[in-house]
Formats: sequence, structure tokens, C-alpha cells
Amino acid sequence: MTNEVNIAHEVAQLAHVELYTPKLQESVAFFTDLLGMQVSATMGDSVYLRAYEDFYHHTLKLTAGPEAGLGHVAWRASSPEALERRAIELEASGRGIGWIDGDLGHGRAYQFTTPDGHLNEILWDVDYYEASEKDRTLLKSRPQKRPTQGVPVRRLDHVNLMCQDVTPNKQFMADTLGFKLREHVVVGPNEEIEIGAWMSVSPLVHEVAFMRDNTGNEGRFHHIAFWYGYPQHLMDIADLFVENNITIEAGPGKHGVSQAYFMYVLEPGGNRVELFGDSGYLIFDPEWKPIKWTEPELKEAIIWYGSPLPDTYFIYGTPEREPVLAEQSQTTKEPVK
Amino acid sequence: MTNEVNIAHEVAQLAHVELYTPKLQESVAFFTDLLGMQVSATMGDSVYLRAYEDFYHHTLKLTAGPEAGLGHVAWRASSPEALERRAIELEASGRGIGWIDGDLGHGRAYQFTTPDGHLNEILWDVDYYEASEKDRTLLKSRPQKRPTQGVPVRRLDHVNLMCQDVTPNKQFMADTLGFKLREHVVVGPNEEIEIGAWMSVSPLVHEVAFMRDNTGNEGRFHHIAFWYGYPQHLMDIADLFVENNITIEAGPGKHGVSQAYFMYVLEPGGNRVELFGDSGYLIFDPEWKPIKWTEPELKEAIIWYGSPLPDTYFIYGTPEREPVLAEQSQTTKEPVK
Amino acid sequence: MTNEVNIAHEVAQLAHVELYTPKLQESVAFFTDLLGMQVSATMGDSVYLRAYEDFYHHTLKLTAGPEAGLGHVAWRASSPEALERRAIELEASGRGIGWIDGDLGHGRAYQFTTPDGHLNEILWDVDYYEASEKDRTLLKSRPQKRPTQGVPVRRLDHVNLMCQDVTPNKQFMADTLGFKLREHVVVGPNEEIEIGAWMSVSPLVHEVAFMRDNTGNEGRFHHIAFWYGYPQHLMDIADLFVENNITIEAGPGKHGVSQAYFMYVLEPGGNRVELFGDSGYLIFDPEWKPIKWTEPELKEAIIWYGSPLPDTYFIYGTPEREPVLAEQSQTTKEPVK
Amino acid sequence: MTNEVNIAHEVAQLAHVELYTPKLQESVAFFTDLLGMQVSATMGDSVYLRAYEDFYHHTLKLTAGPEAGLGHVAWRASSPEALERRAIELEASGRGIGWIDGDLGHGRAYQFTTPDGHLNEILWDVDYYEASEKDRTLLKSRPQKRPTQGVPVRRLDHVNLMCQDVTPNKQFMADTLGFKLREHVVVGPNEEIEIGAWMSVSPLVHEVAFMRDNTGNEGRFHHIAFWYGYPQHLMDIADLFVENNITIEAGPGKHGVSQAYFMYVLEPGGNRVELFGDSGYLIFDPEWKPIKWTEPELKEAIIWYGSPLPDTYFIYGTPEREPVLAEQSQTTKEPVK
Repeated sequence: MTNEVNIAHEVAQLAHVELYTPKLQESVAFFTDLLGMQVSATMGDSVYLRAYEDFYHHTLKLTAGPEAGLGHVAWRASSPEALERRAIELEASGRGIGWIDGDLGHGRAYQFTTPDGHLNEILWDVDYYEASEKDRTLLKSRPQKRPTQGVPVRRLDHVNLMCQDVTPNKQFMADTLGFKLREHVVVGPNEEIEIGAWMSVSPLVHEVAFMRDNTGNEGRFHHIAFWYGYPQHLMDIADLFVENNITIEAGPGKHGVSQAYFMYVLEPGGNRVELFGDSGYLIFDPEWKPIKWTEPELKEAIIWYGSPLPDTYFIYGTPEREPVLAEQSQTTKEPVK
Repeated sequence: MTNEVNIAHEVAQLAHVELYTPKLQESVAFFTDLLGMQVSATMGDSVYLRAYEDFYHHTLKLTAGPEAGLGHVAWRASSPEALERRAIELEASGRGIGWIDGDLGHGRAYQFTTPDGHLNEILWDVDYYEASEKDRTLLKSRPQKRPTQGVPVRRLDHVNLMCQDVTPNKQFMADTLGFKLREHVVVGPNEEIEIGAWMSVSPLVHEVAFMRDNTGNEGRFHHIAFWYGYPQHLMDIADLFVENNITIEAGPGKHGVSQAYFMYVLEPGGNRVELFGDSGYLIFDPEWKPIKWTEPELKEAIIWYGSPLPDTYFIYGTPEREPVLAEQSQTTKEPVK
Repeated sequence: MTNEVNIAHEVAQLAHVELYTPKLQESVAFFTDLLGMQVSATMGDSVYLRAYEDFYHHTLKLTAGPEAGLGHVAWRASSPEALERRAIELEASGRGIGWIDGDLGHGRAYQFTTPDGHLNEILWDVDYYEASEKDRTLLKSRPQKRPTQGVPVRRLDHVNLMCQDVTPNKQFMADTLGFKLREHVVVGPNEEIEIGAWMSVSPLVHEVAFMRDNTGNEGRFHHIAFWYGYPQHLMDIADLFVENNITIEAGPGKHGVSQAYFMYVLEPGGNRVELFGDSGYLIFDPEWKPIKWTEPELKEAIIWYGSPLPDTYFIYGTPEREPVLAEQSQTTKEPVK
Repeated sequence: MTNEVNIAHEVAQLAHVELYTPKLQESVAFFTDLLGMQVSATMGDSVYLRAYEDFYHHTLKLTAGPEAGLGHVAWRASSPEALERRAIELEASGRGIGWIDGDLGHGRAYQFTTPDGHLNEILWDVDYYEASEKDRTLLKSRPQKRPTQGVPVRRLDHVNLMCQDVTPNKQFMADTLGFKLREHVVVGPNEEIEIGAWMSVSPLVHEVAFMRDNTGNEGRFHHIAFWYGYPQHLMDIADLFVENNITIEAGPGKHGVSQAYFMYVLEPGGNRVELFGDSGYLIFDPEWKPIKWTEPELKEAIIWYGSPLPDTYFIYGTPEREPVLAEQSQTTKEPVK
């Protein structure tokens, strides 16, 4: 079998995401009181959380910091051997940082950055969440009882990263980790500017998306998405958001890209969170040709039905940054984080 | 205008229901933790509750008692004058009990019993619920913020009473209070046995239903219904019920009668509670002819889609009673309560 | 009983609405192919339609005309006597036009105009729709089988009329027909300008709304609303609208006023149609105090959650008209229609 | 890489299913008028259909036959090389039949039978569906416009096969095609009888399930499942089924196994069809331990919420067969088909 075949199955899934927040307590309250998430552990400046159908120790790590933004994104390899192979490949790419011993909930991990500077890691060993007596459920594919608090999200779905330039990031994830391009958006007279790319290692349309940062900054974070799967839950949580002074930035509405029934909100720390209200669609075709949306098709790509996205959607990211002049952006290739 | 016209608008709505429960604390926990209801007050052996879109002081009064069952049903007249007129009419019917001074949340009320012996009252003066600072909402038609606890029901909808004989109860409500018959079920070779009657004073198909008690007992309680209006909420609360050992007796499913998307559960005290997951249909036609379901149409009347109702649905009521022999039932005309 | 009491129950419901369309065939196709409505009859330049849970002959009459706009709004009285009483009152108001013999589907009707010039009528005798053999259903509260075409709307819900000045129209409907004010919006330094009023004769928040025409024109039509009651159906029909080049103007989203889960589209003839995706809330309280939204509360009044309404929502009506200068508007008090 | 790793990704997806029906026309009408499926082609005694989000030429082939039952199940390999490797492995298993040239919509395929005798095939070359001008959509991940007919299913989901003995069938699919066991049910004093196994090659819980045939027969068909993903659609199609005399066998309800929100109906030809109303859950964990449900957990495995399944669910399959005596079943190891 060719290496190309192998690489397609080397990464299994998005394991967890770390976010910085300047308002740790309020952020934790948002994820627990409203989104019904569970605190697995607290250590130092970090709180570890998971949704009720997340199987591992945590899928979200909130860490106190001076400003909002991405801590890191963690991927689970599909085997111990795949982890070793990926570490070698990442090292060879020149973007490898090296091994860390692990963290609460998982073992050693190999760290690296995307070309745009987002910190990522890949790991194999994970701790499984074990429900306490009172949270034990009879539903054997569910790691704990469904919570009675808030409108509980079911699982981590994907992460969306802003980039100064989408293409090299996309290429890097494909070459080193085997991510497949599922959909992308290209604009410009010759379709030469790729402004968005949605990539996955599974039938999901994406576990990671890269979107052009219109401010010209590097390494910023666009959003993390948690999954409901039921459209009504977007209505329910929207109601709670309005009642509790959480800013809904956009939605509910339906994207053309990924067919996601979406809503975007800002958690109290300032990070954008997407709630995903249906299943979008799944890709099983092994010959899938990436869907290319061009400038005349942009409207349907962005919004299939529902209101247009506000300008903030295309500019706001964390950490907040002033727009960078074009000249400057050529010289500041160091990650912002 | 004829008296017949007048009586059609003398009663405005179902105001509240009192239920007895041998497990007060567990019953309160059921209605608050899972159904998201609010405790308005506690007095003596009673706890007063309301759903978050109920406007008055309470719509449910839970009172500790040796066994489950109906305390009383309270109706709000459509004006102070209507209250006085109804009291006179009830007095004249021979089923009047007399005035009480009121209770927490409302003023003087005139008490009476149905022919089957269910205690009812009619009142005018009500206290409105006033949200505390932290529960105040910007949605001005909503008396308080939507709760973040459980899958919160929105309002009290209707009450269903078991009867030894449906017809006199139906007739009594029509004659003394102006309830209109909306749907009924008749069986027997000559359609001579009325086994169910759904009646209302508003476009709702029913605020009260009478169903034949197949055990031959009198004055028992079948169920109280709280309203969601969204089908997904029946799925959500069903999930919580299973996780928390609440017995789902039937549903979700769709009745032919009333077109209600229903689910029935037993609260910990033993009383049956219906959760109403859509709007059924509304009746605006002033010439509405009561819908008569006959024996060959029984299947669709009971279940339009979904599984057949279990036998318990037709036999179980509160308080629990042994079946009464036909001869006995002729002689025990005193209310059971 | 006082006259005031009587008038509260003189009108039973919205019976039907006539709309003009410059594209009769395309308009009919919209209502039948996509909204699953049924053609009851065709006569002259008019096509008569109904939703599958509308009980009468028709609830929508589409008439070919040079431009889009309201034909008339028809109300059903609550009794033959109420019809006669209302005709007398309307005559006395100076806004009566007189009796017509009737139309397909109903008997004699008394015509009148609102102060803003919208043609209305009130009637008693109606023909009931009778399903043909193949459309007969076992669900006895449903006049015909649920259609398999499009995403079928269930029934006519309400009508929204644009006015040069809301207050006199509101007053007229209250005084002559007994409509109750349920919610209204007032703006200006002293809350002296009423820009919207929602009125009903039933527990629905409105069967008719009046909204200020920001172009200064008179007698224009804002929208007709058909009811689904299930939020998913707005997603489903939105999908079909996009696929079939129907302009979605706004939504799905949730109004604060009336708590309606809404979507607005333009039918091919140019008239605005609302699809109503839940039940909003119902008013049973006989002492209901109209909800007054003021300028600082406008945002929540208009949109509880979802995106802001586009400007067109506040300007566009049928027939299309240029904005009228303030001075002119003082002199052109004749209905535009 | 070991062979064991390779085999995990050799099969990509369920490609199509052929069913026999003694009422071809009525069966086609069921799938098109009610489930909104599209006819791709008709050839000889067969009609080829697809759901509107199925990408290939067809996913369902209906063939006229004397009695209902399975024609064959077709799997798509993940590459041309994988197809060749699987053919060799199947040949070696002794259950290979050989190559066929193909059919409408796909190229050469290697045929084989399960141990229980169900005809299967594996293929690589497929024809993609190309929408005609009028069915072309702007939603680029959707192969055609969403239909306006019926409540349209979105895609083929899985197939469920009845077996005299589940275990060898499960083992065969794992060994020759790399299917992973996701959930299973074992009963008996020592958990020695496997009565159900759910297997997949993707994050779906199953593309194929094997369930014990309690009649003792071999090679029968339990059901084919089409996917909606939205719970409301089960309510909508249930309504249409009742209106149109289609027998709903069970549901809507929620299985514990696979967490599927299900409904089962019999198409006019007699084959059981499942409609799948949500997403169940997805499995991304590369170390997934198959979930084992045992006898005391059977209730929750079968029904998480909703009514118990009827007895027919465990006995009825197509073709219909009399129960086989235990002795006989030892000797008739030939497939029934």
C-alpha cells in the first residue's frame, strides 16, 4: 500500500481544545450553566470540561490568561504507531516543537504549529471519563447521564482557525496529518485566493477549518464548535442566551458550506463558540472531489437560508488585534500567540 | 342576548390544580428538577408551584396526603360578575358547597363538586406572579426568565378526571359553567355509553376531559397536563425521565382526539402527568359540531400514530382503588375523595 | 350584561383574505406546490384556496390584478345576531359600505373600510369544505388528508395591515368589532406615536395587526400569515424556497412581540407571506393588560433571537408606492387601494 | 503496517440494496410519493431509485418477484486495489461466487454470500447521478434540489439482515471485509447466544446489523433504513403513512442500541423499512470497545424511550416463512432466498 493511503487514516479525531480566557469563572459558568458541560478537573489556572457524550477526560480546557484566544488543539492518532509516524513527519516538516509528557487526561503528545502559528499537538494515550455512581446511566453508549442543567451540548465537533493565508495551512494538514479537503472557497479574478478550507479525517465535513483573517493577523482563533444535532436545541439555547446576556453573533441559520445548522455566540471571555444544530451531511465517498465555491456562489456558500452573517464574523477573532497593514503582514511571519 | 350566549363566556380558564401526594418532597423535586417549575410558596403541608409562562401565583398546589389524588380544580371566571352568577347557578344545581375565603394566591372562591365527586372551585381575584430582580426578563409577555433547570414546561394546560359515568359530568359542566363539548367517544351497540368527553371554554380542545373509570370507582383523577408546545421537548424530557427512573407510561405519540402530541408519566407520588408536545389544533368556529368518535373509529381516536396505549391508561387513576362490582357502584354514590 | 361585555365576543375569527396578484398562475403555484394548499374553486379572475386544516370553503382568494395588494379581509361573526349588530354599529361608525350578496363559499357580508382604507367585511354564513372520497381522512378533526405536496401549511392565522396612523385603526377595530389590544409599540419622546398594534378576538395574540407605514402611504398590505406550528417546517420550507427562487425576506427568527417563530417571504405576485412556525403564546387572562413596548425595548420587541429585520420589512408593502411627503400625506386621506 | 490495520479501511460504504417486491408499482409509489425518492432508471423488471442526497446512480433497486425479500446488498470498496484484495479474500473464504459485469449505475462487482446466505457484492466503479437542468441546485454538496413531494428521505443509511445464527455472520464480515463490531446483544445463562450485532466501516454505529431470526429460518431480510436526521420528519411521515394506509409497525421511539430515533413501516410489497430520525451517535474512538448488552439490560437496549416493540419485530422478515423446527434448522443450511 502506498504512503498516500496510509496517511488517510493516521489521525482519528479531534481530542480537545484549550482556550485562554480573561474571565475564567464566567467562562466556566457559561459552559456549565448554559451548555450543561461537566467539570472533570481543576488544576492551576485551568479548568477541564467535557460534554456529556464526550468519552475522554476532557474536550475543553479553559485556562486563565490575559486575553482570549487559542491555547492549543489536540488530535488523537489512530494508533500508537501512527502517533510515532506522525511525529517523525511533523519533525521533518520543520514545524515540530517536540514531545511533552502529557497533561491531565492524556499521555505524551507531540507539539507543532500550523504555518500560521496555531499550537497543535497529537497524542495517543487518553484517560476515559468514568461516571460517578449518581451519574451512571443505563444507556451504554453514553458515558454519563444526560444533565438536567442548561441545554446540554453532546460532544466537541470541530475547530475553526483564522489564517493570514489559508493555502499553506491546508497543505500542511494534508501533507503531515492526512486531512482531506472537503470544501473550500476561492475568490479573485483567477480564483487564486483561497479564503476558506474545510478538512476532515472522518466522514464529518470538517474537524478543522481554516479561514482567511481579513485583518491580516496570524495565528488567531475563530471558533470552537459543540454539537447538539437537534435544531430545536439552537432555539432553546438561543432563548437562554438572550435571557442571560450572552451575545448571539449570528444564527440560527444554515450554511451552504458543510450544510451546518449553526449559531455563533461569544462566551464571556470573548471566544467565539458555535453550536451545531443538526448533522450537516456526511461524506462516505472515497473519491470525494472537494467542493469548490467561487465568488459568484459565495452567498449560498455562506448562508443557504437565514440572514447574512454580520461583518464581525469575518473580522473578529481571538485574541483581538488591530488590522495589520499589507506591508507589515509580509514581515511579521512569527505566530501572534 | 339569550342566557345561552352569556354562559359561553362565563369561565375564562383553568386557574390551578391541587394534587395530593404521599411523597411531597420527591414530587416537588420532580416538578422542579425535571420539569423546571418554580416554587412560589410553601405553607403548611402544601407547596405552590408554577411553570415559567404561568402568569398567576401558582398553577399547581402539591399537598402532602396519605395517598395520591386530586385535591381540587380551580377555574377563573371571566369577570367578578360572572363569578357571582356562576355561584348562584352552582348553588341552584344542588352541587354547591359554598364560599371559601381563598388561599395563597387568590381570593374568595365558590366550591362545588362534579356529579362524580371531584372537588372544584371558581374564583376571580388572583395574585400575579412578580419576578425577582434576577428572574426578570426583557420578554414582556413572559412573566420570568426561562429557567436553566430541566426541560421547563411552559404552562398548565388541562386536567382529566375519571368518572363512573361521563355523561352527567359533561352535562353539569355545560349547564352550570358553559363548557362546550368539543369531542367525545361513544361506544355500545347504540352508541349509548359515552366513555370520554373533551370540553373547553376557549379555542383549546379541552381544559377538562372526563373519561370513564373502568374500575367502576368514582371521583378519581386521571391526569394533569403541562404544555411544552415543541415536540423535541418530549424527546428531551423522555431522556431525562429514563435517566432518572421516572416511569413513562405511554408516548410520545399522537392522539386522534385533540390531535395532542402526548407523553404520560407518573410523578413520584403516583399521579399521572401529561406533557403536551405540540399545539394540537384550535377551534375558532362558533358553530363547531362536537366530534363524535364511535367504536369502529376508536383506534384512530386514541392513537393517530405511535404505539397503542397500555391497559393501565384505562384503569389506573389516583387514588388507587380496587375495581368496584357493578352492583356496588350503584350504591356508593358518595365521592371517593 | 353591559354592551362592553357583549362586544368582546361578537367576532369569532378571521375567515379569509383576498389578495391581488399580477402573476396569478405563479402565485397559485407558490401556494399549492410549495405551501401545499388546495384549490377549492376558480371563478373569473379568482382562484380560491385553503390550507388542509382550514374548515371552510376557502381562506385565501387570489385575484388577478395589475398590482399586488389586499383585496379584502373577511371576519366571521360569532352568531347571525352578532352579524346584524355589527353591521348596525359599522354603519353608525360612518365607515360602512353596505351589504353584498356573498361570494363563493359564503353568504351575505357587510363591507366596511378601516380608517386607513383597507376593505373588510363581516359575515356569518359559510360553506364547509367537503373532502372528496380520496381526500377523506380518519382524523375527524381534520377536514381532509394531509397533503403530500410541498411543506403544507395548516391554517390561516392572521393578517397585518400597514397604516399611515396606527391608533385610529386600532380604535376602530376595538370600538366596532370588539378586538382587544394585546401588545403595542409606542415611540417618540412621550411615547406618543403608536407604530404597531396587535389585536385579537381569541386567545391568539392577534388575528390582525396594524403597523405604521414608514412611506407615509395609506391602506397598504403588509402580510398574511399561515400557520405551521412546528419549527422544523420553517427549516423545511426555507430549503424549498431557496431551491425554487422564492425570496426569503427575513427569518427564521423569533419575535418578542407575540413570541412568534417567523419567516417572511414574497410570493411571486409580490405580496409578503409569513409562515408561523410555533404557537407563540396564548392569552387566557380576562384581565390582560396590553403589553406596551417602548423605544428602549424595541430591539427585543422586534427580534427576541435571530438576525435583525432588514429595512424592507419596515417600508415594503403592497401595492408598492413611493414615499409620500409629510405635507401630502395630510391631504391624501383617500384609501390608496 | 499490518494487514489488520489495512482491512479496517478496505470497505468505504453501503452502496445500494436490491429488494424484491410482489407489488412493484405500489412499492415504487411508496418510495416516490411518500418518501420523495427519485426514479433513476427502469430496466426489465427493476426500478432504480435514490434519495435526493444520494450521490450515485441509485441506492435502491426494486425488482418484481413472487415474494418480498432481499435481492442483494452492495458495498463500495475504498479503492480499486481494495476491491481486488477483497475479492481474493472472499474467494479464499469459500463464500465467493464470482465477478459479474455490473449493472446499471456501476461496473464489475464481486459477489458472495454471508454464512446465512444473503447475497452481497462489492464494487468500485460507480456512476454519479447528474441532475437535469430543472433539478440542479445551488447547494453544491447536494446532488439535486430537495424534492417537493412527500417527506423526502436524504440518504440510504443501513441494512439489517436476519440470521439463523448471528455470530458466524458477524465474524465473516469482520474477517473478510474489515467491519468493526460496535454493539452487540448476548443472552443465555452464560451470555453464549449472540442475538444481535451492529457493525460498521465508518463512524456510523452500523451500515449492517445481523439479528437472530426467531423463526429459525436462514437468509431473510429484516429492514433497510433511510435517513432523515430530523425527528420532526418522523412525525410528518407518520402522519402521511396513517393517511395513506401504510402500516407503521413501531415507533417513533428511541433505541438504546445505536441511539437511533426510529420508525418501522412495511412498504406495500411487504419489506420492512426503517426511517431514521436523528443521528444516533458517531464513533470516532480508534480503541472503541464493542458495547455488550446482556439479558438484564435488554429493555434499555431495545427501547430507550417509547413503547415496547411488537412481537412481529422479532419474527417477521421477508420472505415470510413458517417457523422452522430446531432439528430441521440443523439440516437446511442452504440459503432460503
